[in-house]
Amino acid sequence: MESKRVAAEKAVEYIRDGMVVGLGTGSTTYWAIQKLGQKVKSGLSINAVATSINSENLAKELGIPLISISKIEEIDITIDGADEVDDEWNLIKGGGGALLREKIVASFSNELIIVVDESKKVNRLGKFPLPVELVKFGYEVTQKKISKLGCVTKLRIVDNKPFITDNGNYIVDCDFGNIDHPKDLHTAINMIPGVVDNGLFIKIATKVIVGYQDGSIVDL
Amino acid sequence: MESKRVAAEKAVEYIRDGMVVGLGTGSTTYWAIQKLGQKVKSGLSINAVATSINSENLAKELGIPLISISKIEEIDITIDGADEVDDEWNLIKGGGGALLREKIVASFSNELIIVVDESKKVNRLGKFPLPVELVKFGYEVTQKKISKLGCVTKLRIVDNKPFITDNGNYIVDCDFGNIDHPKDLHTAINMIPGVVDNGLFIKIATKVIVGYQDGSIVDL
Repeated sequence: MESKRVAAEKAVEYIRDGMVVGLGTGSTTYWAIQKLGQKVKSGLSINAVATSINSENLAKELGIPLISISKIEEIDITIDGADEVDDEWNLIKGGGGALLREKIVASFSNELIIVVDESKKVNRLGKFPLPVELVKFGYEVTQKKISKLGCVTKLRIVDNKPFITDNGNYIVDCDFGNIDHPKDLHTAINMIPGVVDNGLFIKIATKVIVGYQDGSIVDL
Repeated sequence: MESKRVAAEKAVEYIRDGMVVGLGTGSTTYWAIQKLGQKVKSGLSINAVATSINSENLAKELGIPLISISKIEEIDITIDGADEVDDEWNLIKGGGGALLREKIVASFSNELIIVVDESKKVNRLGKFPLPVELVKFGYEVTQKKISKLGCVTKLRIVDNKPFITDNGNYIVDCDFGNIDHPKDLHTAINMIPGVVDNGLFIKIATKVIVGYQDGSIVDL
């Protein structure tokens, strides 16, 4: 927890008055939103865009002004977590199920600061099963096509029912073991009809902050 | 109408006993489904998968046995229309709004027979605005990104409200004028976060049947 908090709080130091800030989703981003809330109480003036209902509610509680994504042209800085980060700052995201909204927000952010604890830092992606969001229609066939790319697929089930994303789609978690060519895999998956997007974030992160148990951080 | 009917009826000649048949959507496919219904009444034994509620209802009325997409491994032949077909059998589809389901069904069909009247046959794609299906969240930004690829975009409106696809998404119609490199454009659009899929069907059609006003057909 300490490792997550220190990384998240470091990221918040980059936020300046007048910025539009993207709020990611998850247990590390939680600490960033908490810290942002403190700063807003102390006079920091920002507008925030949330990637999930959870982050939106947390921001509201803390008095962080929210703005609709439809009202803005771009986001200055987005702070978000990740399930894995490799040496080239490629990411796997989507463990929490919000990969698509997170990717949309990230894609029009000038900066994407990724905050993680040390357990998420890997040499090569793929130990964490890659989440893929797909439309319900024909998902069994779509799932089979994904597995032909070399993974074991599993429809995400929560409370004995298929998990439904904020966009009304399913998630399939894909265990590749090792992902040797994340960029190619990203394209190959997204070219399958029925796939909406996948949790690979390729060269989108502009900064990665890793927190350690002893409270130290490495700001990459 | 005659040109659509003759092309559609020609396509149905390829359907054999025992096949799983994909039913497209639209005014030309309508005639194929009608003809299939006649043949089923005369003893043809098939199972059909529909790409839209409309085609499903029509098939039901005509007594064509339907099977859920979740119950099958592959489709033998799909018959579908198109808004444009170029010399290399690349297509623009989606004028009717069912592009995603049509593409999913086509993608696991062994054969995709496209039936069109002569007005749909073009040397180069792009006069017909390309439909792109995108998620609601952040669609304004997604739309702007698509327009940067060189088109004028227009959110599809029906009855004064944004049109909603069967998958709960929006459609943006994109006027490119001329599409010089359909394959590259297909990839570029689908790589934009928030885009679910677009109406370009690249090298998926295995046969194109064009009907003419005088009742003649060209079976390409």
